Order: sequence, then C-alpha cells, then structure tokens
Amino acid sequence: MSNDILVVGSIALDSIKTPFGEIKEALGGSATYSAYAASFFNPVRLVGVVGEDFPKEHIELLSKRGIQTEGLQITKGRTFRWQGSYEYDLNEAHTLATELNVFETFRPKIPPAYQNSDYVFLANIDPELQLSVLEQVKSPKLVACDTMNLWIKLKPEALKNVIKRVDFLFINEGEARMFAETSSLIRAGRHLQSWGPKYVIIKKGEHGALMFGQNSFFATPAFPLEEVYDPTGAGDTFAGGFMGYLAKQGGDISEPTLRRAVVFGSVMASFTVEKFSLNRLKDLTPEQLEGRVLMLKELSHF
Amino acid sequence: MSNDILVVGSIALDSIKTPFGEIKEALGGSATYSAYAASFFNPVRLVGVVGEDFPKEHIELLSKRGIQTEGLQITKGRTFRWQGSYEYDLNEAHTLATELNVFETFRPKIPPAYQNSDYVFLANIDPELQLSVLEQVKSPKLVACDTMNLWIKLKPEALKNVIKRVDFLFINEGEARMFAETSSLIRAGRHLQSWGPKYVIIKKGEHGALMFGQNSFFATPAFPLEEVYDPTGAGDTFAGGFMGYLAKQGGDISEPTLRRAVVFGSVMASFTVEKFSLNRLKDLTPEQLEGRVLMLKELSHF
Repeated sequence: MSNDILVVGSIALDSIKTPFGEIKEALGGSATYSAYAASFFNPVRLVGVVGEDFPKEHIELLSKRGIQTEGLQITKGRTFRWQGSYEYDLNEAHTLATELNVFETFRPKIPPAYQNSDYVFLANIDPELQLSVLEQVKSPKLVACDTMNLWIKLKPEALKNVIKRVDFLFINEGEARMFAETSSLIRAGRHLQSWGPKYVIIKKGEHGALMFGQNSFFATPAFPLEEVYDPTGAGDTFAGGFMGYLAKQGGDISEPTLRRAVVFGSVMASFTVEKFSLNRLKDLTPEQLEGRVLMLKELSHF
Repeated sequence: MSNDILVVGSIALDSIKTPFGEIKEALGGSATYSAYAASFFNPVRLVGVVGEDFPKEHIELLSKRGIQTEGLQITKGRTFRWQGSYEYDLNEAHTLATELNVFETFRPKIPPAYQNSDYVFLANIDPELQLSVLEQVKSPKLVACDTMNLWIKLKPEALKNVIKRVDFLFINEGEARMFAETSSLIRAGRHLQSWGPKYVIIKKGEHGALMFGQNSFFATPAFPLEEVYDPTGAGDTFAGGFMGYLAKQGGDISEPTLRRAVVFGSVMASFTVEKFSLNRLKDLTPEQLEGRVLMLKELSHF
C-alpha cells in the first residue's frame, strides 16, 4: 500500500466575477483545489481530465508542489469551463455558463500504480463516477467525498451509495439541510451520519464547521476574515487540507487528530478565498498556516 | 451604589405559532426574558409597563426569582401584545399583529432607589426611551443595550447615540450587516465597535456568537440543539445572562471573564428556545446551565 492521497474530481478553467474583481479562464476545479491543499501535508496523486488547450503552466504548477499528474488524462477537445458570479453576500455562486467539453465523457481511470492508495478523496463530481473510483481502488485506509446540490437533486440514490462507503462526507450547510430534509442543521448532520459515513463534516463558510461522528461532535468557528475576495474552491480546499492532515498523521482518527484536521482544512480555506484561483495558496507558507490555526485557537477558547 | 442590575424594556403577552405548536398570551417581552436570565446570577430591578389586565401570577413568577418589581408600572389599559409566527427555518419572526396598548405612551421612570444601579441593561425598546434611561441613572459601572431592525430603519441616529454610550451592544447577525451596511460580518462588527461601544456582541443563533473589542475578538459556536421549539426571547436571554454573569463577577471585564459571560448568555438562550415563553427557564437549575457550558467547551476545543 502507499501513503499517498488519491484525488479524483474536476479540473476546470474558471471565469469568475465577484464584487471585487473578475478573472478569466483561471485554474479551478474540485480536484485542483483539493489536491493542491492536500499537497501541503502529504504526497498527492491526481486523476482527472483536461483538453488539449489546457495550459502547460498549470500542470507545472501542480507538479512543482509534488502533485503526481500521471493520472491526468489529456484528451482531444477543450477543457471543462465554468463561468460564475457572486453577489455581495458571496454565499451563493450563480452559474452563468457551464461548458462540460472533455469532462462530459470523463470516466476516471485509476492507473494501476495508484490503486493501492491509502487515502482517497472523491472531490465533487457525478456520484456514479465517484462509485466507479471506489470500484477501482483496493483497500484504502480512509475515504472521503464531497458533493453539491446538483447531485442531491439529480442522483440522490447514487450519492447515498457513495456516502455509505466513505469515512468522511463533506457537505455544505444548505446542501445538508436539503439532503436530510430538515431545517435543523444538528438533526441534518446526525441524519446524514446515520446513512453510513463514519463522519459528516458540515461546511458553514463564515460560520465555521461541524463534525458529526457516531458518538462525537465538534464545532468550530471560522477564521475571521474582513473580506472574502472569491469563495470559489473554499470547500474543496477544506476537504483537501483535512485529508492531507490526516494522511500526514498516518491515518490516525482519534478525536483530537480529527478536530485538528477540521481546523487545518478550515483555516486553509480561509487563505483560498483571499484571492482568485490558487493565487493565495501558491504563496502560502506552513508558518502562515500554523499561525492562523494558533490564532483561531486563541480567539475561540474560553 | 448598588450591585443590582437595572433592566428596562418591554413586557408583553405573546401569541406565537411555530411549526411545533402554538401558545396564546404567554409572558414575553425583551425586559422579561433578560431580567429572568440575569436573575440566575445577580439581583435584578425591573422597569417596564403593563396594563391592568396583566396576570398577577406573572408578577409572582418574577418576584419568586428575586426580581424587584417596584419599577413595574401598572397602567390603566391593556398590556402590550405581540402576535408572531415562525416558519420551518425559525430564523425570522413574522409579526402578525402588534397591539402597543399601554406600551404606546410608556416613558421609563427609574425609581430614585434604582438610579444608583451599577449595571444597566437597556433591553430592546425605542432608542429614545433607552436614552432617557441613561439620563436618569447616575454612574453605572457597565451598560449594555440590545436593539432590533425596526429601530435601525426608523431611528438610526437615536440608536447611534445610545450605542455610543454603552459598554456592550448586542445585535443580531442580519441587523449588524444592515446597520453597518456591509455583507462582511467581521467588518460589520469592527465598524459598529468603532461607533463607540467598548464591545459589540453579534448573536448568530444556531451559529453562535462573535464579540468584538477594540483589540480583541472572540468567536464561539452555539450549544448544539436538534430542535428549536420557539426562538422568541433567545437574544434577550443571551444579553440578560451575559450581564448577570458579569455583575456576579463584580463587573470584571477581563477577556477571560467576558468570554465566559458570552458563553453563559449563549448557553442560557439554548434553554429558552426549547419551550415556549419562560417555561424552560422556570425549571432551569444552575447545574444544568454549568453542564451545558462544560459540554460546549468540550465539543469546541481542539
């Protein structure tokens, strides 16, 4: 087996408009953010698809962080593109256009050398594709998945089959309420956890995060930011940082380690949202990350 | 001077409908909830107005907790009535009817014996009335106020004059964003604090609370509840519990004490919302309160 983290998900070129600025065809996608975040802690293997138009410098950026890109399929056609905007409240992404392109026919193929990965993160993609990844990996120590409202609406059964088989389900606040069909977030978390995952982590953006285990519960506020520049990728960063942190601890899932993994993931996301794309993470140092974790501790303990 | 807490605000008969039940003409009002909560920690002096129809047993209920009711004006006419409902999300109260009755001409008269109170809590009422209370008290150690969206819209200048003169401004999340005219809650808190109050406490309901000082910041999650039965009075309970806790510590406002005051207020509110009116607080024991504070600590520290 290998200590590496396998990350499978979308790789995109994002065009985004927020109240603070605008960017065109920047590196994005669920697998991109989560792999990048995880790479701060542990070696990462990326599986995804891009088109022939995908800029070489993006692949170099990932490689430079030690992310293995042998599983990155480069296919005839154009890379997946997402165009979105945020209003002043920044809580909800408005999709202006989605061009699936090569992503439309993407079927994740896990290279044989990757099938022994100890850690697997199924970033947000079609739950049927997430299931197909689970069929291809041998016996991972820990598996996590993320998802989005689209799949809760379109493929709830496939999604339930995925979350039954994972150790960690990442889901955001509104999606948790929607999927569990209750306005009570605490009830939603418990309900989703009862469907199979060992832990459910509810991402609440500026309000922090909740983690529900069978006999445990953890709540943390978010690192306080005066301004969020672009929330894109925050959830992916959170989950990637979480998995990276756990892998670095050898897959220890004692409560104190899990809590620190949530905090590291959440704090890492607080950097992502300060700039477009991976721009802030590119310059992030371990000292800055540790610094914010310590600050969060200081400003929330009593 | 006296160590007692002076509480001035509304006393109401509430008729409330939530998805879980309905109650008619139950004891409510901003001063009622906050005085009751504060009385768990420290002697309280209540100033407000009710009509001749106000049930004697309500006054007895307050007296039984040691709340001094000499400042309760009983006026010819009917007691203030509020009729409201909550939908499933329970975040927003929908006002169905408001009968001001004797409250319409209420001018708080602080009895001479109360003018030397060390601690003053201006529960949510017209900011001009809150100002008139400040004119009547001598030199309180600590003053706190609460408010609501109505006054931010109708009397922003009077409200600014109040908050300039208080040590603690309590305000809820949506109102903080509205008053400070920013979608960033962190910026809103800092901004409101810069208008004069020593501390701004933003109440976020199920998401907990934030406290902003000039050189300090505290964030805490809420005590997790599977079900909120009726959110009415949660904010008043929070602020009352906070002031009670501080008064009990002799007005110490060191950061650790302030943080514990926020936590005690917030946890106390988690009891209020479990039943209608004061029904849950009536049965609350100090052990239960301490128990939840300890649990909140255990489930949020890392």
